[in-house]
Amino acid sequence: MLASLETDFVRTSRPLYSHLVTLLESAIARGDLPSGARVPPERTLAGRLKISRTTVVSAYRELESRGLLRGYVGRGTFVCAPPEPEGTPFAWRGKIAAAALRTSDSTLRDVVRHASDPRMLSLAAGEPAIDFFPNDAFQEAVAHVLRNDPASAWRHGPTEGQPEFRHAISDRYGVPRERVLILGGAQQGLDLLARCLIDPGDAVIVDRPGYLGAIQSFRAAGAKLIGWDVAAGDVDELEDLLVRYRPKLVYTNPTFQNPTGITMPIRIRRELLTLAQRYRVPIVEDATYHDLYFNEPAPPTLRELDGHNLVIHLNSFSKVLAPGLRLGWIAAAPSIVEQIAIMKQRLDPHTQNLVQFAMARLIRQGAFDAHLKRIRAEHARRSGLMLAALQRHVPAGALRFARPQGGLYVWCRLEPGMSATALLERALAAGVAFVAGPAFYPDPAGDSQLRLCFTSVLPSALDAGVRKLAGAIEHMRSSPALTA
Amino acid sequence: MLASLETDFVRTSRPLYSHLVTLLESAIARGDLPSGARVPPERTLAGRLKISRTTVVSAYRELESRGLLRGYVGRGTFVCAPPEPEGTPFAWRGKIAAAALRTSDSTLRDVVRHASDPRMLSLAAGEPAIDFFPNDAFQEAVAHVLRNDPASAWRHGPTEGQPEFRHAISDRYGVPRERVLILGGAQQGLDLLARCLIDPGDAVIVDRPGYLGAIQSFRAAGAKLIGWDVAAGDVDELEDLLVRYRPKLVYTNPTFQNPTGITMPIRIRRELLTLAQRYRVPIVEDATYHDLYFNEPAPPTLRELDGHNLVIHLNSFSKVLAPGLRLGWIAAAPSIVEQIAIMKQRLDPHTQNLVQFAMARLIRQGAFDAHLKRIRAEHARRSGLMLAALQRHVPAGALRFARPQGGLYVWCRLEPGMSATALLERALAAGVAFVAGPAFYPDPAGDSQLRLCFTSVLPSALDAGVRKLAGAIEHMRSSPALTA
Repeated sequence: MLASLETDFVRTSRPLYSHLVTLLESAIARGDLPSGARVPPERTLAGRLKISRTTVVSAYRELESRGLLRGYVGRGTFVCAPPEPEGTPFAWRGKIAAAALRTSDSTLRDVVRHASDPRMLSLAAGEPAIDFFPNDAFQEAVAHVLRNDPASAWRHGPTEGQPEFRHAISDRYGVPRERVLILGGAQQGLDLLARCLIDPGDAVIVDRPGYLGAIQSFRAAGAKLIGWDVAAGDVDELEDLLVRYRPKLVYTNPTFQNPTGITMPIRIRRELLTLAQRYRVPIVEDATYHDLYFNEPAPPTLRELDGHNLVIHLNSFSKVLAPGLRLGWIAAAPSIVEQIAIMKQRLDPHTQNLVQFAMARLIRQGAFDAHLKRIRAEHARRSGLMLAALQRHVPAGALRFARPQGGLYVWCRLEPGMSATALLERALAAGVAFVAGPAFYPDPAGDSQLRLCFTSVLPSALDAGVRKLAGAIEHMRSSPALTA
Repeated sequence: MLASLETDFVRTSRPLYSHLVTLLESAIARGDLPSGARVPPERTLAGRLKISRTTVVSAYRELESRGLLRGYVGRGTFVCAPPEPEGTPFAWRGKIAAAALRTSDSTLRDVVRHASDPRMLSLAAGEPAIDFFPNDAFQEAVAHVLRNDPASAWRHGPTEGQPEFRHAISDRYGVPRERVLILGGAQQGLDLLARCLIDPGDAVIVDRPGYLGAIQSFRAAGAKLIGWDVAAGDVDELEDLLVRYRPKLVYTNPTFQNPTGITMPIRIRRELLTLAQRYRVPIVEDATYHDLYFNEPAPPTLRELDGHNLVIHLNSFSKVLAPGLRLGWIAAAPSIVEQIAIMKQRLDPHTQNLVQFAMARLIRQGAFDAHLKRIRAEHARRSGLMLAALQRHVPAGALRFARPQGGLYVWCRLEPGMSATALLERALAAGVAFVAGPAFYPDPAGDSQLRLCFTSVLPSALDAGVRKLAGAIEHMRSSPALTA
């Protein structure tokens, strides 16, 4: 074997040790050096090939790190195993980052997949009445932009967003212009905030139950999640958590909350802000549903009540117009806007211009507010239809829920002993999707709860969807094994 | 002071220690406990308030962690400093994550900002001839989608992308359907790949010089960047790097490379793939410019030459159509597509549907390929115009460059002693932007180089842009202090 290496080892311009690695590797591959064979001692090989011992050591170490050789102190170095034959599938699994493997929850993806599956009645995705989308006004706005200034639509735009759109939001929502940053959806904002504000191990207080996308983003950033029972709204409990965990931030969705539908009263909002100021903790306010009241407007946002510049306000056009727009915004202190913009450039140098210009026009022309007015009435109507269907089809006592005053969801509790996760499996088989409670909890809990969206299917399909759900519940009830 | 604490300390339903923290904090704020004052020993206070010593210890520790108290072994605990008065600006700087502070390079954002600044002639941003964008065909496609199936445009879509669009790409580029994943731009793909594949400390081999967005994404994920001199294309050097650093992946932009414009010959492509297979290292191929040849089509992509399923192919419509579309795609092994989709849902549950449907239609109808044909000719023309302008206006010897055969860039070397960073400052003041060389290097280097984009301004403005640049160079030459 030494002889054949000597023959093969011709001087090249390549680094000697990588040349030697290749030769040894080929010898192993050909079987000239079978598994278990002892390779020559380093000094011997170096002498025969007239190269330095260091070169041989490097080559052996390289082959060791690749699992082809293994050294035993006092015994020598041995061939470990034959290399994989050509054509072996590339071992991708071993290439995935540890952090990526940590978070493999695919709930959000499943929700959006079901929403776009025509064979599925989806009460899962949080979608407004998209059949009310102002298509004509939108198309007119697109045509206007492409007629007047196509270059601005197609070239790069500012990372913070188009000034025209930032100003329209500033005027519509009463936020100073320099505090507005445009996003490709609120989820992008949560991801950016998590990356800007969270170091691994930081504590974050989140609504419990609360928005699953926020839970995922903060968890992926390595945060330790502390749930605050937002329905109870106990401010003393919150203070206790602030003192005990010293969180990096508080995330809350205080209006027509996802998933519970509840709204934080103005008194609690004020106390929350006082605590945040006292403990120097920023609040991330998810205001996605704030404009979606049925009759009574919601209390002012935390942003509006904030006297200390500590609220980061997150908003979106996904729930008031359409998720397909991929458009959201943040209002925050200019230093945070700057930080987020620097982070954003790395993953999305700018948000699509065309949709920004079009939305700016819909806001300026009043089409956006006219649309809001229409969907408030329609959402209230669909909420009533869903509650009536639930009362009509679901066996008495199987499901408890409160009547929502806005937002998109009915939050339900199953009768004791019934699992929402098991029910979901049954429901999907029957062609109806919802979101099971555990997705909304930062800890293992919530399997007796489920979220239904009353706006995501047409009124004509609402009744059928609820009937399928009721059928799945009846089936569970009649199979005691399933409810164990 | 003890007396007043005793008076104020009434039993509440709140946790005792957080109640005590508040009381002590107020006493400090009011000045009852001035800076430097010694607070009662824990045992004493516990006795007087009739609470456990543990509660007092917890309260003191809490105030210590907030910087209000400081304990000295054997001496007792003292008030540190008065709290900030009400209305003090919220100290946002202290809230930023360490990882976010690590990466504050804003080059990408500056580039896109200059591109959208009407007062600036930008030779910086990499933009194709957007004045050739097929506006009518695009608007027709949008109208078609909104007329036929507005719900599919506005509701959620699959995280992997709309099947219709994935299939159009699959057919156009010859990739199996299940290997295609749609992105909101190639930069999103780089961010996702960095997060999916890189653990902090992993080595990554990148083109040197190479795409700044890739350098930023990999660096932000904590990678150790190893530059491979892509222009020299020395495969032995690459093998040496593979052996020495055991990188997690190789990132390369092999065709009409950004920033150099060079194209890797097919022989080197094959050797690169052989090495990647031998060392089990995935290759991320950035193929953004592959279709942008002037006369001669480029060699096959690494994806097409890959016999071992180890290439992740990254592509985009930003350079062949318009960056404003925010649309890109990845072709990879199905297990990688799955991993990326799970990561993507967290930051962008799905890419905008409308633009996917519209682009699918432009591809199917042939409008996309017709457009490619038109811009190839136009880009070749603009490249010639820029070279002519450079020869006309720039003082002889001040700038060296090669004639590009495709892509969007002329890569220039300044005469010795001249700094591209200093020149950029001068050029921006004169109203013309470019990208200085250091942005493309993973290590501190490149200040004698700069990248000019010949497609991002109209031909009528190209000459003026180059003239301003030449003026800035002349100014630098005549101010010896600046070239020191």
